[in-house]
Amino acid sequence: MAIDVGTILVELFVMVLLARIAGLMCEAVKIPAVIGEILIGIAISNIIIGGGSIFSFLQLSSEANFSIFQVLADLGVIFLLFTVGLVTPFSELRKIGKTAILVATLGVILPFFAGISIILAFNGSLLEGLFMGAAMTATSVGITARVVKDLGVTDSIEAKVIIAAAVIDDVLGLIVLAMVTGVGKGGSLEILDVAVVAGLAVGFVLVVMYISTLIPKARKAVERRNRVKSKKSLLPAHLSPLPFALIICFGLSALASYLSLAAIVGAFLGGMLFAEFRDIWPCEEQFAPINEFLVPFFFLLVGINVSLTTIFAPETMVLVILVSVAAILTKYIGCGYAARKIGKGSSMIVGFGMMPRGEVGIIIASIALGTGIFPGSLYATVVAMSLITTLAAPSLVAYAYKRKDRLFGKGLRRFKG
Amino acid sequence: MAIDVGTILVELFVMVLLARIAGLMCEAVKIPAVIGEILIGIAISNIIIGGGSIFSFLQLSSEANFSIFQVLADLGVIFLLFTVGLVTPFSELRKIGKTAILVATLGVILPFFAGISIILAFNGSLLEGLFMGAAMTATSVGITARVVKDLGVTDSIEAKVIIAAAVIDDVLGLIVLAMVTGVGKGGSLEILDVAVVAGLAVGFVLVVMYISTLIPKARKAVERRNRVKSKKSLLPAHLSPLPFALIICFGLSALASYLSLAAIVGAFLGGMLFAEFRDIWPCEEQFAPINEFLVPFFFLLVGINVSLTTIFAPETMVLVILVSVAAILTKYIGCGYAARKIGKGSSMIVGFGMMPRGEVGIIIASIALGTGIFPGSLYATVVAMSLITTLAAPSLVAYAYKRKDRLFGKGLRRFKG
Repeated sequence: MAIDVGTILVELFVMVLLARIAGLMCEAVKIPAVIGEILIGIAISNIIIGGGSIFSFLQLSSEANFSIFQVLADLGVIFLLFTVGLVTPFSELRKIGKTAILVATLGVILPFFAGISIILAFNGSLLEGLFMGAAMTATSVGITARVVKDLGVTDSIEAKVIIAAAVIDDVLGLIVLAMVTGVGKGGSLEILDVAVVAGLAVGFVLVVMYISTLIPKARKAVERRNRVKSKKSLLPAHLSPLPFALIICFGLSALASYLSLAAIVGAFLGGMLFAEFRDIWPCEEQFAPINEFLVPFFFLLVGINVSLTTIFAPETMVLVILVSVAAILTKYIGCGYAARKIGKGSSMIVGFGMMPRGEVGIIIASIALGTGIFPGSLYATVVAMSLITTLAAPSLVAYAYKRKDRLFGKGLRRFKG
Repeated sequence: MAIDVGTILVELFVMVLLARIAGLMCEAVKIPAVIGEILIGIAISNIIIGGGSIFSFLQLSSEANFSIFQVLADLGVIFLLFTVGLVTPFSELRKIGKTAILVATLGVILPFFAGISIILAFNGSLLEGLFMGAAMTATSVGITARVVKDLGVTDSIEAKVIIAAAVIDDVLGLIVLAMVTGVGKGGSLEILDVAVVAGLAVGFVLVVMYISTLIPKARKAVERRNRVKSKKSLLPAHLSPLPFALIICFGLSALASYLSLAAIVGAFLGGMLFAEFRDIWPCEEQFAPINEFLVPFFFLLVGINVSLTTIFAPETMVLVILVSVAAILTKYIGCGYAARKIGKGSSMIVGFGMMPRGEVGIIIASIALGTGIFPGSLYATVVAMSLITTLAAPSLVAYAYKRKDRLFGKGLRRFKG
């Protein structure tokens, strides 16, 4: 096992350089940078120049070198989910209206069963079906937030419902993921095992959420007893929050992993927990550059793991089209129906807005690939589906807003203040 | 080669947790946190509980797992040096007075030859001597800056000379390091080889410095030609500087490594280069959390690599005492003599202030250990010397300031504005 720092530095240089070029090109044509990073990853492993791919030129085919980037990518996605949790304090989640909950629930149930059905129809195993279903449930909060921001409609009622529902979606999606991962690691589909894993997953999520509801109460109780002192003096607010956030993040990720759940489930819950200290220990800004450095490695590796020869095999192509259409329709119908009451023309906006799967579906597919549950073709299918839904969403959402504006005259209204 | 993310997460959790506890304890007794991190590293690999060290419990003895932390530590030290370079634009370096240059030069020459002499007197090889000399030259800018800040004398004339000289020291130290690394990698001490490596090292440093002097000129020339547009529009100031900084950092580190120089020399020069864009692309704040996450791994590993049984062997003990005394005296005499003109009582302040070796000496020793030039005993000697000089400096500098104040009445004066 020979790790040479010089080689790693060359690999880092080339990967960061290519990712940035791809990002700038995407920005120029107004596509999320994440798409560019995945496409560059696909290029790195699939384009053959002079007898080899960039992948082999960079010596990434050496298992030792590749494992370094695997860990950097894993850290990236763990921090990404921690940061999403960080802006999702449980106390705020509870304030969200019934519509968002309904949108999220229907937006999880329909795609989940559509995924299972398609895989079973293609003679796949139930386990493959469970993971495909899970990969189809999640709405990417990051992509969604960016789309409404780019359109300048962040303050519209539809945007608020979409973002709130996407967040709830993530929680539901992670519970589904926690369950299927547990089942997948056990390799068994016995009813009892599934029940144990599901119980463990739901239990873990509920226990962490319960602890996070206790934190504000505990803090208030301590403050009451120390009335003489100022509120700030109770927790060392002068200390940098980052190391404490890292301890919570790694601790809960490791615990989730130990319980056979996905590490990112623990990271997300850790973020939610730490969000309860946001008033004295805000650390989103500290995570931003760490994520800017590490997260691109995750998407580069997503692309690197895709084999174009697999994706363009006739049978995979059929699956890609079927899964993509199902992913679009189930969210459009489920979420649109759930949002029908908030206003005329709004259900189309919400239906399209909930469509982009972005990174979350891909994360689930990566876990399935890593644990050997997914063959390369199913992994490639999910990546293609995520790319398609993410690429299509911005223009469809923009169209729906304009349509509403044309037909009902208040599609692009903004609720200021 | 089995990398299990769950295991890595447990290792990360324990290491970050222990490092933070050590940091808090150091803060409580007003010692730099870096000392605590090194001591925790020593504890992790040296303290045996119930038949094994924490090191073996954490499965860090698995080469695949350890290599992950090696890379995290390497990235940490590369970013650390890039950041030091980032606050050292070449244009500012040139403005510094003769005193600082003299302090730095004598502070490099004396310890360098003292190191070589001691090793040769102990029947060591010339190569070992060169590395010991190099490890004894560098003054830790980080530690020095922190000591004067903690004393509240950042604005005193002595503090300014110390900081400026420490920065020049780093540049000289890195040139020395670049030379000895090149010689070390070649494994040869032929005059011609040494000359080639020295030429390459000095050439690399000079070329990058020359390029960095061209940048302001080139930018001005371009601005003149584009007088119609605002200055900001010439470079995409709205883009995050971090990816560009990473590209420069990895690019020059890889190049230095390719030229058989130490990667950190490239990182430092990359930082100096990027510092020329500081007005539109400041990125120290973006590197701060990345360093806060990664740099502790470097110091933990510094400690982990120390064997207490080696350090407490009689012969090593003699060497530790001798090298530490020489490290203190050569800086005290050399720098103090060079600073004698700035004021009565000032040369003692500067002499003590230039003493802490902190991380830089250790970085050099790590390279020597990694390339097989240093046996464990010499590595342990440098780590012990760095700890001793760093631990001793704060109280000695405080004493010297108070002494000057008592004898000459202006030791703690501050130059406001």
